[in-house]
Amino acid sequence: MPVISKKGLSMPESPIRKLVPYAEAAKLRGINVIHLNIGQPDIKTPQVALDAVKNNTISTLSYSKTEGSNEYRQKLAAYYSKHNINISADDLLITTGASEALSFVIGSIADNDDEIIVPEPFYANYNSFSTAFGVKVTPIVSKIETGFALPEIAAFEKSITSKTKGILICNPNNPTGYLYSKEEIQQLSQLVKKHDLFFIVDEVYREFVYDGKKHYSVLEEDNLEQHAIVIDSVSKRYSMCGARIGCVVTKNKALKNTILKFMQARLSPPSYAQIASEAALNTPQSYFDEVILEYVERRNVLINELNKISGVKVIMPQGAFYCIVELPIKNSDTFAQWLLEDFSVNNETVMVAPAAGFYATEGLGKNQIRIAYVLEKEILKRAIHILSEALKTYYLNENS
Amino acid sequence: MPVISKKGLSMPESPIRKLVPYAEAAKLRGINVIHLNIGQPDIKTPQVALDAVKNNTISTLSYSKTEGSNEYRQKLAAYYSKHNINISADDLLITTGASEALSFVIGSIADNDDEIIVPEPFYANYNSFSTAFGVKVTPIVSKIETGFALPEIAAFEKSITSKTKGILICNPNNPTGYLYSKEEIQQLSQLVKKHDLFFIVDEVYREFVYDGKKHYSVLEEDNLEQHAIVIDSVSKRYSMCGARIGCVVTKNKALKNTILKFMQARLSPPSYAQIASEAALNTPQSYFDEVILEYVERRNVLINELNKISGVKVIMPQGAFYCIVELPIKNSDTFAQWLLEDFSVNNETVMVAPAAGFYATEGLGKNQIRIAYVLEKEILKRAIHILSEALKTYYLNENS
Repeated sequence: MPVISKKGLSMPESPIRKLVPYAEAAKLRGINVIHLNIGQPDIKTPQVALDAVKNNTISTLSYSKTEGSNEYRQKLAAYYSKHNINISADDLLITTGASEALSFVIGSIADNDDEIIVPEPFYANYNSFSTAFGVKVTPIVSKIETGFALPEIAAFEKSITSKTKGILICNPNNPTGYLYSKEEIQQLSQLVKKHDLFFIVDEVYREFVYDGKKHYSVLEEDNLEQHAIVIDSVSKRYSMCGARIGCVVTKNKALKNTILKFMQARLSPPSYAQIASEAALNTPQSYFDEVILEYVERRNVLINELNKISGVKVIMPQGAFYCIVELPIKNSDTFAQWLLEDFSVNNETVMVAPAAGFYATEGLGKNQIRIAYVLEKEILKRAIHILSEALKTYYLNENS
Repeated sequence: MPVISKKGLSMPESPIRKLVPYAEAAKLRGINVIHLNIGQPDIKTPQVALDAVKNNTISTLSYSKTEGSNEYRQKLAAYYSKHNINISADDLLITTGASEALSFVIGSIADNDDEIIVPEPFYANYNSFSTAFGVKVTPIVSKIETGFALPEIAAFEKSITSKTKGILICNPNNPTGYLYSKEEIQQLSQLVKKHDLFFIVDEVYREFVYDGKKHYSVLEEDNLEQHAIVIDSVSKRYSMCGARIGCVVTKNKALKNTILKFMQARLSPPSYAQIASEAALNTPQSYFDEVILEYVERRNVLINELNKISGVKVIMPQGAFYCIVELPIKNSDTFAQWLLEDFSVNNETVMVAPAAGFYATEGLGKNQIRIAYVLEKEILKRAIHILSEALKTYYLNENS
């Protein structure tokens, strides 16, 4: 029998993968499952993007340019200019989602056994993209007690070895909803310069920032051109997760040339999705105003309802549409499974993402879950009511 | 300054990348460049596929299923059944092009420093996908003298080490146009069973087979379930290179589960392109009949014209739409550049792919080029006339 690679065996599973069969079984039993577990917004895609694809005049669906079409990259550069970021089309490489962007960046900066430092909890797939290349994630714990703020710089400095190639953060953060401040970005910028590291910032939620706060992009930092790498995507901004269009933004020429070699091998990003993405740049501001308002309201409902539950701890998210919730339980893996297998209110239950999958340090996050507030307020209210009822029963179960 | 990874530095460039600026410069000088260098067919995409996208009713462009939609996989399984291949939807994993399929397969079977055996010349990106994971391609030379037939099995056997994880072939072959026979597939099948290796067959050109020959898929082999992996794609079959939809076909469960972990990390294949790909399965047979007829005529014109040139050697391709052409020159890299920089007939020149990029063994292929016959017959005729005139002049240059 031929054998699977060691890296293949150690590739992490999605944090919710084990729960999927239980959710399917619940649905077969007639239970409505409310999905708090996935960041798939229910928000409509901008009409201008949908129409562009419907009205396309393609007759031969050919490869597009490896690094993305010139027109799209030029318009995208103009988008960043409007956000106080001075880049040109040449600094933009269009990828098949932020996923591919992250993969190619990691492959371009780190070899087998190299390390990348990431504050935990973090987007679980950072670990997958790293593992695929034999690269290790070095986690630095951020705590709910400090609102998931940036850990002390000393903790980063202590973790840097000769194998460390970069620091990776997500801003605003999935899964914590934390928005890193200008000062925090500047502290990390100093650090990467001091140690000759790359500074990768996943800014796919850059426009989902609330309460009048302002997102500070790593690309706004002066004298960081050789270090700064931004990962971006149309998935959340325009509720176009299925497009699979993202990008890498960097001014580092050697890095661009290297990523381009990875890109050449996979030929080109998807053509229809590029049409949608280019058109999406014409989305009127009113669309975003409405969407942000909707997310703020959802967030407020969610956090309000959660705060009513005894023993639950949660931080008010300042951006993105996730939060980490600490529950009065011992193991959120078994709790999440139990919710799907053994619990319902009026034939309805909830699916949550156990948070352990967002930590690299064994044992952390076991009493936490991640909730995505990408559903309507009334559904969120019902979901948190179910969670609240469930915790009453489960508490007795777990301690019996 | 932060540094690029070793693997990033060793990622090969596309064989024609260096030529691109010369082609652009030629166009700026008013020269028409006929592209014999790239496998981008001019053939129209089936109307049924184009219409499905134009008539889509998506309002939120959401993630599709990680392994591809159930509907598409079921219909695709039926396609294989019609081709004498007995698989179910569960044996199909839908990827972002054959490129991603190859990447995930290599990552799932080989670790850093492992080896994969490939007959050369081969599709240049096999080397890129392998290099990205620190995997080495072990080439076994196939020769124009034997029509690029499968090298002796003894040569494969001699190359197998404890680090060898698989054998990879492309059937019918890019860049040689060679169609492996049932007997050759069976010889390799015996070999992979004997040595516990995976047998990966890139069958993206499976329907482009000429002169009444029949393609024999590795999936038709009995008792090879644990070893056989097919890579496929809609790109060439339906002239939909820009869709970026491919697949992995295998019955090996451990392998499927491993590939699925790579797939989960990148979330899902592009949604619009899946709509096009599913609809493309309804393409009428008349479309393929016409396309095959067209390619046969193009091939005949091309080979006929090439055979008229003194000192040129070429094998009649039995499948795909490429051929390797041996020229009476010393270095096809400099020849290809010279064609773009210094030569034209009636303000027209040709761009060819130097063949050295399709070989892993240093020094091989230097007097060869690859031609893709994806252009109309009249254009091909003009292109080969230009090549013929060029060789007369170039011969004098090279030997002056």
